[in-house]
This record gives sequence, C-alpha cells and structure tokens, in this order.
Amino acid sequence: MVRADPDSRDDQLTTVRVGLLGCGNVGGALVELVDKEADAISERSGVHLAITRIAVRDLTKDRASSGPPGRLTDDAMSVVEDPDIDLVVELIGGIEPAQSLIEQALRQGKSVISANKELLATHGAHLHDLAAKAGRDLLYEASVGGAIPLVRALSVSLAGERVSRVMGIVNGTTNYILSRMQSAHTTYEEALAEAIRLGFAESDPTADVEGHDAAAKTAIIASIAFNADVSVDDVYRQGITDIDIADIDFAQRRGYAIKLLALAERDGEGEDESIAVRVHPAMISNDHPLALVNGPFNAIFVEGEHAGELMLYGRGAGGQPSASAVLGDLLDAARALKRETTFLHPVRRRVRIRPIDELESTYCITLEVLDRPGVMAAVAEVFGRHGVSIRSMEQVGLTSEARMIFITHLALESDVQATLQGLKELDSVVRVGGLVRVIGDEDGE
Amino acid sequence: MVRADPDSRDDQLTTVRVGLLGCGNVGGALVELVDKEADAISERSGVHLAITRIAVRDLTKDRASSGPPGRLTDDAMSVVEDPDIDLVVELIGGIEPAQSLIEQALRQGKSVISANKELLATHGAHLHDLAAKAGRDLLYEASVGGAIPLVRALSVSLAGERVSRVMGIVNGTTNYILSRMQSAHTTYEEALAEAIRLGFAESDPTADVEGHDAAAKTAIIASIAFNADVSVDDVYRQGITDIDIADIDFAQRRGYAIKLLALAERDGEGEDESIAVRVHPAMISNDHPLALVNGPFNAIFVEGEHAGELMLYGRGAGGQPSASAVLGDLLDAARALKRETTFLHPVRRRVRIRPIDELESTYCITLEVLDRPGVMAAVAEVFGRHGVSIRSMEQVGLTSEARMIFITHLALESDVQATLQGLKELDSVVRVGGLVRVIGDEDGE
Repeated sequence: MVRADPDSRDDQLTTVRVGLLGCGNVGGALVELVDKEADAISERSGVHLAITRIAVRDLTKDRASSGPPGRLTDDAMSVVEDPDIDLVVELIGGIEPAQSLIEQALRQGKSVISANKELLATHGAHLHDLAAKAGRDLLYEASVGGAIPLVRALSVSLAGERVSRVMGIVNGTTNYILSRMQSAHTTYEEALAEAIRLGFAESDPTADVEGHDAAAKTAIIASIAFNADVSVDDVYRQGITDIDIADIDFAQRRGYAIKLLALAERDGEGEDESIAVRVHPAMISNDHPLALVNGPFNAIFVEGEHAGELMLYGRGAGGQPSASAVLGDLLDAARALKRETTFLHPVRRRVRIRPIDELESTYCITLEVLDRPGVMAAVAEVFGRHGVSIRSMEQVGLTSEARMIFITHLALESDVQATLQGLKELDSVVRVGGLVRVIGDEDGE
Repeated sequence: MVRADPDSRDDQLTTVRVGLLGCGNVGGALVELVDKEADAISERSGVHLAITRIAVRDLTKDRASSGPPGRLTDDAMSVVEDPDIDLVVELIGGIEPAQSLIEQALRQGKSVISANKELLATHGAHLHDLAAKAGRDLLYEASVGGAIPLVRALSVSLAGERVSRVMGIVNGTTNYILSRMQSAHTTYEEALAEAIRLGFAESDPTADVEGHDAAAKTAIIASIAFNADVSVDDVYRQGITDIDIADIDFAQRRGYAIKLLALAERDGEGEDESIAVRVHPAMISNDHPLALVNGPFNAIFVEGEHAGELMLYGRGAGGQPSASAVLGDLLDAARALKRETTFLHPVRRRVRIRPIDELESTYCITLEVLDRPGVMAAVAEVFGRHGVSIRSMEQVGLTSEARMIFITHLALESDVQATLQGLKELDSVVRVGGLVRVIGDEDGE
C-alpha cells in the first residue's frame, strides 16, 4: 500500500488502490481495461492498479464488470473516505455531488482523476488550489478530446513553450453535422437527424449545437495552455444553429470549410497580457489541416513560439477512448504517489480576459433581402456608417428575394455587431444569417 | 544543487545545471530559449534551468549565445565529468564520440537528453540498460518528429494502451518531394532540386531519399510503442528514388496519395507476438488523414486498441522545434532528478521481428514494356506462376513502348518479389518501376 510504506522508493511493484465514482460508459470501459490489462500495465509502469471499490447510483442494475462481491456500493462518500483507497476517479459528471466528492478526496490526501469538463471549466481554479494545498494531483486528460493526449501535451511536453494560440475542433457532434452538410449537401435539420440516429448526437442536442460543450473544453484548454484561470463564463459562445447550407456552399466555392472552432489566444506581455477565448462557427481555408478534420473526429492545433505548429487528432469521445485517457492519468498519478510527489506542478495566474468586442477579424455575413431597387444602397450605407469595409460580395437571386453574402475587410467585432443590428432594422432585410468569422486570413486576398 | 541537498523535496525552486554537448542549429536555439524564457520556465516547472557549460568543436567560431566567459569549452568529456553538472544534453549526432559521452554521463549519475536518432536507433537497447542501472533518465523526444510530442505520447499517455500499429510520415524532405510531384506535377529530379534550393533537403540527399533517416526513426518509434528492442537493422527500407510521376498520376486518379511511410505493427500475443517494421513508399487513400499531410510536415498515426485512432502532426525538423522538444525533456528529467527519481520507467523486451517476406499486402507494380503482341500474356504468366493475382490493370501507350500499372489482390511479399524478378527477366519488359504497397485497403474494392 502506498502510504503505509514511505520508504519504498525502489522500483518494486506497488499496489495502488483506486476508488471509482460512476460506472457508466467510460467507467465500465475503464474497469474492463484495468482488469484485462493488469499485467501489461504493471510491466510498463511498475505500478499494480487495483480498482477496489466502485460507487454507482443503482446497485440493482446488471453490470458486466461488477467484480468481486463488496466492490460495488451506492455510497460514493464512503469510497472517498475509505482509508484503503489511494486514488479517486470521478466519472459522475455535473457539478454536484461530483464537486463535494472531489474536494473531500483531496482533503483526505488522495489524488483525483476526473473527466468532468463541466466542473473543471466552472470551478477548476478552486479545485487546483485545493490539490496544490493537499500536495496531490488533479488530472483530467479525458475531459477534452477523448484519448487525444492534449492536456498532457500542453502541460508537460510544451511546459517550456510560449503558446500563442490554440484552435480546435473539440465537439464531434457539431463537426459531424457540418461535415455532412458539406459532403452530402444536406440541410442542418437533416444532418442533425442523421447524427441523432447514428448516436453522434443526443436526442436533446442543445449542449452540443449551441456550443456549451465546446465552451467548457475551451476554458480548460486555455487554462492549461496559458497557465491561467479561465472559466467557461469567460468564453464567448455562438453555436451552429444559424448555419445554412447556402453558407457552406459559399465557403466551399471560395476554398473554405465551416467548422465550429474553439479558439484560445494570448496577446501582449506582462501587465499588457490578455487572453481571448471563444467558440463560434468559422471559415477556415482548405489549406489548413483543421479544415480536413471531418465526421466525429476532434483535432487541436497549437501554435507555439518555438515548437511551431502542432496538431493532435483523434476520436474525441466514446467509452473506450476516454477510458484510455483516464488510465494514462491514473498511471501518472499512481507513480507520483508511490514516490510521494505529484505528477504535475500546476501554476495558475489571473490574466485579463479580452472581451469579444475587442476582436479584430474578417467576417462573412449572409443576408436574405427583398429583391427590389435600392436594397444594395441601403445595406451598403449600414456597413459604411459603422466603419465596416466590404472586401467582396456575392448575390444570388431567389424567387422574390435575393441572398447577399459579404466578406469584410479586417473589422472590429463591436462595429460588426452594430452593423448587424442596423441591418436587422432595414425593411428590405428579411433575415440576417449566422455570422461566420474567417480564420487564418488576416485581410490578405 | 540537486544532489547536494537530498532533503529538499519541497516545491521550492531548485537550480539544475545543464551541460550541453554541441551548439549548432538545435543547441543554439536551446541556449537562446533557456536564457530568454528562464523565468517563465521556473514559474511553470518549479525548476531553474541553467546551462552552465557548453562543449563545441571549434572555440574560435563566432556565436550569438556563448554567454558568460568560461561557459564554452572544446573538451566535451570534461563537461560530462564535471561534478557540478546534473544533466547532459547531447546534440552532437552520429555514433562516436556521442555514445562514449552519453555512457560516461550515465555512469556518473547524470540524466541524459539526446536528439541523436542514429545512435538511439543503433544502440538504444544498450543505452537504456545503462540508464536503468544508473537510475537516471535517457530521454529523446527530439529524435523523432521535431516538436511533435510523439515519444511522450507513446511512452506516457498511452502507457496503459495496447498499440497495434503506428504509421507515420517522419521525413520532411521526402514528403516535400512527393507532395511537389503531386501538386505541381514536377518530376522527381525537379522536386528534389527545388527541395535542395529551399533548404528542405541536403545537397547530398541520400540519407533522406533512400529512407535511412526514416528507418532510424521507425526503429525508435517501434521500440517505444511496443516496449521492445528494435534496431535500425530490423527495419525493412525502400526509398523514393524509383517513384515516377506516372506512379503519382495513377495513384491520384484512383484516389490515393503516395507517401514514404514508416510502419510499425504488432501481431499475436505472448510467444506468438511479433513486430513488423518497415519504411517504403505507399499508396494511401485520400480519405486517410495521413494522405493530406503535405510539404515538410510530419505526422504520426497511432492505432490503439482502446484509444482508437490518434494522429500527431507538426514540423518534423528545424532548430527551434527541436529545441522546444529538448526543453520538454529537460524539464521532465530535471523535476525527476530533484525528487531523486526518474521520469520514465522504461521496460524493454525482446520480440520476434517479422521479416518483410512474411508481409501480406496489396501492391502496385509499374512496368514499362515494348508495345508488341504477346507481352500481356507473358507478363500475366509471370504473375500467375508465383500465385500473385491481379485486381486491376491500366495500360497507357507511350511511343514504341507502353506502361502497365497493376494492382494486386492481397499477396505475400516473397511471392511479389519473385514475380518482380521474373518480370525483369522478360525480354519485353524495359523497366520495372518502384514497388508501392497499398495501405489501409485490405483487398476490398
């Protein structure tokens, strides 16, 4: 047992006892993986992992992996407080009771592995403080990008690197929908229905299509990439529900794909340093590796001052990939515990979060207008009044209406928002479509 | 100083003194990076890195980063044996004197960071043994794929994962050449000349175009992915010098790209376990993310039993990306030293290496033949005699000759090699082109 034998610093096999909270999709896959691969894991890591207690909500449910009698309980706090447990894996999700359980585990000197993006994106700073005070690890590779080793890449491999920007496709549901709209020329509604049918979307897809899931992941990514306190409330968020097949067609004709992009950017140094974090649909050139990430896959593109451009790609969700990520964390935390140290040395700073109003970007704006004389002049006047200059425009006639698609020069978000408001007030404008920011194209044509 | 104060297990700042061997492209970038980012590195890692001694070949050479007087020396062994040095970074390259220096450093209880793919691919097993005996780290993230955190992903993140296959584009020079042949429709010679002009290839490109560089990296990748002793001599190697623009055109028409692919595969369990390691040109479907990796970029695609498919992408070479990778290793090793432990717990096994003769694949074979009656029958007879069955064939008339391109059904390498030998002996065959194996297409049409 780890804590009972502080002198055991050698590389002999140590048993680390794990308490698992929650045994659904990911938990079940984890139990199976640890049970099945126990020998291979010991051989590779020098640590024998044993999941000795599992807390579940419903004890009467049939489970493939209940294991020896007495392993299952419906009292999660008793697992956390069990003195025989060295490490706690939290796979319950949501804020409570997950937060209280993790806090209690850390207070009891147990390291914690979690896949809980909602909790970490909301109370990550507080939980990190607790972990640091306890001298224990709080690891959460599985909270973003499934098995993609993103958290470790940013917190370990790139620990000496000044990361300037992270851009990612971190939500498989929306990426599946946008990919299908592009490749099969289906409408948003058809692609969504297909995604639900195939299990890539929940029957209530709000958390995905409105960008809530991606925003939580963006907060976690930014906090690790920039060693900063970033919460989900700091993230500007726009979902994909306004994206029309006409927008996708237009982008494709111009050599772009439309993706729901998670962005975390750092600007300035010292006191002038600021961080921008946002999730929104973006046009991204087909030359960019992110444009080619299709279907339910995730990818994260990192720009470092010295490392250059890096991209990590893989399946962003699913029981087995997430279990694989949890296991990686488990091994790091277990080996660190065995040596009475921590795997990570996290430092968090408070950095100014730049509001979206200060964003400078090029924008793609779609309007449906009545097809009558004077419309173009009225529309152009609104752009001009707010200082937003148009780089290119395309007009397609519908029946009694027309669709206008504008690409702006570099403009300030607040000016563009004022422009959109002005356009909505025009009698001749029937509908203002989804705003799509253009990425990687800083006003060069 | 690390070793003088074994009780200092707290998180207070510890200075780790680094001796650098070799100060060329990567070394210079490392010195600049460590000097410039010292504060940020301390803040993130809890370790103060100081490069206190630098061994160079030529003391008279002007350097931007020589630092304080006395830091430079031309006696590398004196750096290795300096009792004030805690960690040695070897950036000399080649077998000797790098090997003797690393061995001596490990014997003196110093952890070693190296970017030396040639040495690690040749004597990696021996050096790992030495490091294990010394209880020190031997880390080499920069030896494969520049700043791409591949070694760490395979050895740490996926430590609990059963990796079945790793496929990679690990040589930027050949990828640039093949990408140019495909996108700009240039010949091999033109693309090579351009690569040399742009600095993507050496003036003597042999090590790259013949696949030696990729083979060394493949050995390193396989040894980490499978925890096995794999040396560069185990790697089957075929370069890209036989690839013709006609091969690329043919592949493109069929929806494939041709890439120089590094492959490491594991088959079987226990006593039946075997590893195949090879580097050769391969046709890979445009649906596969590796097909879209163009120019000087590298990418490594990992298939794990639980993690699913992962890909890591980035710049594979260059002083700054490699320095960034070395720094990541430095921090891991320094933090481990501070805690009197090691970062990695490497285990190596001897596993049977499957010879290329046992490979089953589909093949693309190009022939230039005299355009006269009976040729097709003679060619088909050779295929038939060796039991290689043809899935599809395309014939293009040249002037007095014709080009035939065959795709086989799944066939055994030894049979295909015998077929090629038989084809070369036919009077009507002018030239047998480069053999290209087809990947990810196990005989389905």
